[in-house]
Amino acid sequence: MKYNQYAYVTTPLEKEINELQAIDFLPSNYSNYSLTELFGLLVKQTIAEAKTAESKTAKMIEFAVSETTVLADYLKESHDSINPKAFYNVALQLLGYHVEYDYQLSDPLAFMKKQALPYKEEIGSINELIDAFYRLLNTRSKNGQLLIDVMAGKGYFVPFWGKKQFLFFNGKALPVFDTSKVIREVVYVESDLDTDEDGKSDLIQVTIFRPAGSSKELPVPALYTASPYFGGIIDNVKRNHSVDENLSDATLWSNPQYQAAPIVSANQPRDSDAPASEEAVHKGSYPLNEYLLARGFASVFAGGIGTRGSDGLRITGAPEETESAKEVIEWLHGDRIAYTDRSRTQETKASWCNGNIGMTGRSYLGTLQIAVATTGVAGLKTVVSEAAISSWYDYYREHGLVIAPEACQGEDLDLLAETCQSNLWDAGSAIKVKPKYEAMQKRLLEKSDRITGQYSDFWEARNYRHHTDGIKCSWISVHGLNDWNVKPKNVYKVWQKVKQLPIKHHLFLHQGPHYNMNNLVSIDFTDLMNLWFVHELLEVDNHAEKQWPTVMIQDNLQADKWHEENDWADEIGQKVTYYPTDELDLQKDGNGKAKLSFVDHGGQDFKAAKISESDWQYKFICGDEKWAKPSLRFTTEEYIHPVTIVGRPEIKLRVAGSLPKGQISVALVEIADRKRLTATPKFLMRGGQELGYRFGTDTLQEFVPDKLTHAKLITKGHMNLQNYQDMKKPSKIKADQFVDLDFKLQPTYYQMPVGSKLALIVYSTDQGMTKRPLEDETYTIDLANTELHFYQK
Amino acid sequence: MKYNQYAYVTTPLEKEINELQAIDFLPSNYSNYSLTELFGLLVKQTIAEAKTAESKTAKMIEFAVSETTVLADYLKESHDSINPKAFYNVALQLLGYHVEYDYQLSDPLAFMKKQALPYKEEIGSINELIDAFYRLLNTRSKNGQLLIDVMAGKGYFVPFWGKKQFLFFNGKALPVFDTSKVIREVVYVESDLDTDEDGKSDLIQVTIFRPAGSSKELPVPALYTASPYFGGIIDNVKRNHSVDENLSDATLWSNPQYQAAPIVSANQPRDSDAPASEEAVHKGSYPLNEYLLARGFASVFAGGIGTRGSDGLRITGAPEETESAKEVIEWLHGDRIAYTDRSRTQETKASWCNGNIGMTGRSYLGTLQIAVATTGVAGLKTVVSEAAISSWYDYYREHGLVIAPEACQGEDLDLLAETCQSNLWDAGSAIKVKPKYEAMQKRLLEKSDRITGQYSDFWEARNYRHHTDGIKCSWISVHGLNDWNVKPKNVYKVWQKVKQLPIKHHLFLHQGPHYNMNNLVSIDFTDLMNLWFVHELLEVDNHAEKQWPTVMIQDNLQADKWHEENDWADEIGQKVTYYPTDELDLQKDGNGKAKLSFVDHGGQDFKAAKISESDWQYKFICGDEKWAKPSLRFTTEEYIHPVTIVGRPEIKLRVAGSLPKGQISVALVEIADRKRLTATPKFLMRGGQELGYRFGTDTLQEFVPDKLTHAKLITKGHMNLQNYQDMKKPSKIKADQFVDLDFKLQPTYYQMPVGSKLALIVYSTDQGMTKRPLEDETYTIDLANTELHFYQK
Repeated sequence: MKYNQYAYVTTPLEKEINELQAIDFLPSNYSNYSLTELFGLLVKQTIAEAKTAESKTAKMIEFAVSETTVLADYLKESHDSINPKAFYNVALQLLGYHVEYDYQLSDPLAFMKKQALPYKEEIGSINELIDAFYRLLNTRSKNGQLLIDVMAGKGYFVPFWGKKQFLFFNGKALPVFDTSKVIREVVYVESDLDTDEDGKSDLIQVTIFRPAGSSKELPVPALYTASPYFGGIIDNVKRNHSVDENLSDATLWSNPQYQAAPIVSANQPRDSDAPASEEAVHKGSYPLNEYLLARGFASVFAGGIGTRGSDGLRITGAPEETESAKEVIEWLHGDRIAYTDRSRTQETKASWCNGNIGMTGRSYLGTLQIAVATTGVAGLKTVVSEAAISSWYDYYREHGLVIAPEACQGEDLDLLAETCQSNLWDAGSAIKVKPKYEAMQKRLLEKSDRITGQYSDFWEARNYRHHTDGIKCSWISVHGLNDWNVKPKNVYKVWQKVKQLPIKHHLFLHQGPHYNMNNLVSIDFTDLMNLWFVHELLEVDNHAEKQWPTVMIQDNLQADKWHEENDWADEIGQKVTYYPTDELDLQKDGNGKAKLSFVDHGGQDFKAAKISESDWQYKFICGDEKWAKPSLRFTTEEYIHPVTIVGRPEIKLRVAGSLPKGQISVALVEIADRKRLTATPKFLMRGGQELGYRFGTDTLQEFVPDKLTHAKLITKGHMNLQNYQDMKKPSKIKADQFVDLDFKLQPTYYQMPVGSKLALIVYSTDQGMTKRPLEDETYTIDLANTELHFYQK
Repeated sequence: MKYNQYAYVTTPLEKEINELQAIDFLPSNYSNYSLTELFGLLVKQTIAEAKTAESKTAKMIEFAVSETTVLADYLKESHDSINPKAFYNVALQLLGYHVEYDYQLSDPLAFMKKQALPYKEEIGSINELIDAFYRLLNTRSKNGQLLIDVMAGKGYFVPFWGKKQFLFFNGKALPVFDTSKVIREVVYVESDLDTDEDGKSDLIQVTIFRPAGSSKELPVPALYTASPYFGGIIDNVKRNHSVDENLSDATLWSNPQYQAAPIVSANQPRDSDAPASEEAVHKGSYPLNEYLLARGFASVFAGGIGTRGSDGLRITGAPEETESAKEVIEWLHGDRIAYTDRSRTQETKASWCNGNIGMTGRSYLGTLQIAVATTGVAGLKTVVSEAAISSWYDYYREHGLVIAPEACQGEDLDLLAETCQSNLWDAGSAIKVKPKYEAMQKRLLEKSDRITGQYSDFWEARNYRHHTDGIKCSWISVHGLNDWNVKPKNVYKVWQKVKQLPIKHHLFLHQGPHYNMNNLVSIDFTDLMNLWFVHELLEVDNHAEKQWPTVMIQDNLQADKWHEENDWADEIGQKVTYYPTDELDLQKDGNGKAKLSFVDHGGQDFKAAKISESDWQYKFICGDEKWAKPSLRFTTEEYIHPVTIVGRPEIKLRVAGSLPKGQISVALVEIADRKRLTATPKFLMRGGQELGYRFGTDTLQEFVPDKLTHAKLITKGHMNLQNYQDMKKPSKIKADQFVDLDFKLQPTYYQMPVGSKLALIVYSTDQGMTKRPLEDETYTIDLANTELHFYQK
């Protein structure tokens, strides 16, 4: 498997020498050494766990330079040049590979080629040896980390602890901060909100993990994660709303309005600065933050309104939520007051912060990055938003329908708000907050309007894409192309706006579901983030902005291949149109003329069968006789050339339902019997990555070929028949009335392999996402007025 | 669920006061406080994360004493006595419970009863308040840990770091050692073995994690885990032997002999003592050791011969393996030499060790405890052997048959030895070791004799039970009653010997499979181990030996119920005999007369069906038509009183096979449609237990009621027809010759609930454990000469 590397910065030899000397790896008198001596010395330097010259020397018998010779013996003779085979046999052992089990001593270079590991053809001089070692220390080990980071995990940089300065190597920050003395403290930021309506501004608890030595004299950047889950998660999954109910007439819609919470202005920051007096009991949960904490970046977590230790109510998606998340940055930047405890007596400042803040986090935590970024708050320099929601309507609704995130049938805004209302766990707070909380829950349920599923002013206030003009920070989005929880439309639509702004912007699309990607084999994402944050938050000119293409997309056939694109949009492909035929084919020339029907049974068969939603989906897309019945499906011939579907496929279809209401689902599916990649990455080395020295760990992982399957979902979409005239306003329809629907499916970037077929499936009830009616409805499709457009390359 | 507690030591008030003052919890002038003041103070003391008086006071608003009053307000008034409801409402919040979600403020005591949490009825005086708090600090929190340990996890004992002394509370050691400065070092113990036959004694790499401050002046005990997996695991599962083959004639047996490896005596310890010069790159992997490391116990790991960093060959189960594991204790006790590195130049001593050593670990790691204990090595004071093998024949063979550990079909001694031969990963070592290793592998395969499956001198040398007379240390065994990897016979048979020795001995039997139990809800095992090791290795008179019954057995119906027994043996029950009838009943009065047959198809149907072994087993015991066909099954009436089957059921049966060879399997199964416990404990709070302060974590877990199932395996056993005359020597048999088999099944302690039925199943091929012949064989059972005995209570 290829260990692709984008974060290696090409460096002139002189700078390499300087950097190697700055980390005490290369002795200042290196030119006095013979080539063989220096080779031996540098190997020994790499063995960070051996602490004395004697113990390093004793280790030389554990390495082999060839099938017959150990390194200790090789070093006894003098060599005019170091045989690359000998060098890379040892190098691979240093990188953590096992002879015979991973590679053969007879041909290390063949293995390096296969793994996409860099090597030099010749090592005949001291300078070539130094260059080879510089590159080796900056090469990814078997565990996915750079060798220099593996050495760090064994304590190489402990002698640098306490020197109170950042240290960079190949443009990236090194872990030179004493992780045994990380400062972990809690403060309370005063908000301008009074969401619990007690007449006092809400306090927001903020938890800070910051490097030992960070101070006014050594200010450090902050990585801030706004995590509504940080205070704990109230498990209410058993109380999810029932989805086993009939559709309602969408014209019952009354356009619920967003209603603002009261404002009580906070005190202005003053001059006093007391040290924090409460220690954090939580721990950093996000490996990327921990990795960077060891390298000098503070890690700041706040749950925001309604979460444990904070005042107020959780109002998921609302402007108040954005405000409370943003206010933490204002404190970090020196523009807002915070206190040492909830008595509000002692002010405390983030004087340890250099005023440059980045945001990290996935899902809801990524969502709040988009939210906060749109405020243009001072101090926020960059966001790395993973699997984020850009409009809450696109999370819980679609085209006039209630549409669940994957594996979350019946979940909704009110329940998510309850999940995060963890200040109810503080019994004293609960006494005060409970009645207000209950009223808010009732409002959220009513206004989110599960009855009609329609867009409204309530949802409009939860669409961050209206405010992208406010964004001033640089931008990185990360999303899984198979994320059916936060569906890819969320990242796609915000990307179309962000890419037009005068800010640096990047997009990573991986093959996972609702997942992050900082420890994949196939790309050095963590190293890229190191480079990026050093550039954005420490303002070091390390070329981060030029190191990798704007859009990086992981291939769906080969996990270790990444497509380098300038954009992700329809426009990177050419438009094609497919038509369904009377013979159930899908072809480019000409429609069928028939009107074809299917009878939808809602959720009745599904519930009786007691199978899981994912089982249903797989059987359904495979065309299993029982489950495929309530659908129409049109299939192309086998592809004879590989084609990649890009952007958002669009369906136009004329349909009539036998009731005066109805929902249509459309899926595109790749059909072929073949071994596809695993749905989630396989753990390759559990806990095998050291984030610092005696600190946290992460696990190397990658998508790998899995057992044979028959089909794979590419994309899908859903639409309410009553929105045929206007996506934002329902119309009355009659039973059997034909209406013209026109909607886009979720965006994709999907390579159809040779020999596969594309299937267009038209159906109604989607057991895992739509409501599941209790009544039958017959849907009739007029093929003459039905067509599929998409862009391909 | 009941949080049972055995490790609480009843303590007189005066000692409670002394202990509370020794940990700076109770002020020396406590009698000057009013009752209310002292209540407030002690609550604040408990909130270890708030570091100043002000921040502690600010926290008082987060607690509620009743449905309407917060603690801050309650403390403003003076109370003549503390209302127990108010006290325990606060206490439960301190213990981590959530109001409304876990319990109601209106009735905290009802909840405490349900959870088996201790409480006082009256708190009317200072002394009663102190007593209530002492008990509270020693009460198990929601996360399963004592409240004092939860406080420790928040840094309560940091002020005690560096004081260079142990501190005890309620008989248990407290975490007062600086876990940010754990000393982690590697040394090389010189063995008397030369298993790789290079003419030099093998060096054994030993990894030590020891408390900061441990030294000649502050010697500490050592918990030693002999772990063949510590150096890494060579994944060879794909090369497991095929089990899809016919049985062989067992008389091909040639009684393979154990063959000793060469001896090269090590140097004697001298006077020199250099500090270790190599740092450990591994981490402690066993949470119990980590927990105790924070409390002053060193944690020592060694892989032994053949593992990474060590010389020699892995010879699984052999006396050499025992010797190499034992030699580490000899070094810890001062009786053997070790070096700082593999050059053997600098001697290094375990001068930091007090000479008292305990052993811990599960499976192979538990096995080596039994092995080492039988040597009676000086310094070894106690073993806590979990899920351990006591005879290797009982792991890979049974009654003349090749019988796999669960989920390990085709694995054998040679493959396990390969798995652990991790010094092949040191390329330099591999050059030397590989040829010897290959020869050893060949010998192991031949001598372990997968062809006949018979006992032999080779296996005899791997039966630790022959050497139990040598045991001098105290003994704790832990085993899962559903462990089908290391089957319960291993612990049962060694227990029958150990219980007769003049040593302290205990046995824990839980409801898990191949699992450990140090973080179950239903029992405070970790606290018991703390008490135990303090008693055994620090020689503190804390009553550990009287705190819990000799044998503790978890109930199979209610996970939070533990049976307290004096022994585990047939003798704790009364003997009953059941007979199979012609009508396929199983009853107490009188045999059937018929000769009944079934045709065994070996593994043919199983392989065609492509189902897992565990799926097969469940369908098979349920009597699924297809899978039950090659078996005879006899079933009792429904039990009308609960009965517990104890010890080892015994089957006598007269059987003929249609071939001149054959294997018989017998299972006892409980039949009833009911919700049984999960097979493995459910994780209740992932990482929710702090093992120290900013150290490792563990996860609270417990068996919980799972979905309805139809049947559960109680026990089973297997026997080769050719051993009908002698378990240790095969006989020729003829086709269709009736032979009398008499063998015992795996031991059990299984409560048959009212309404369940007991089924006796006679079959041949056990898809998950026996060989799976390619040929059919008809087995005929003579019911008139078949009976089942067992003991029940």
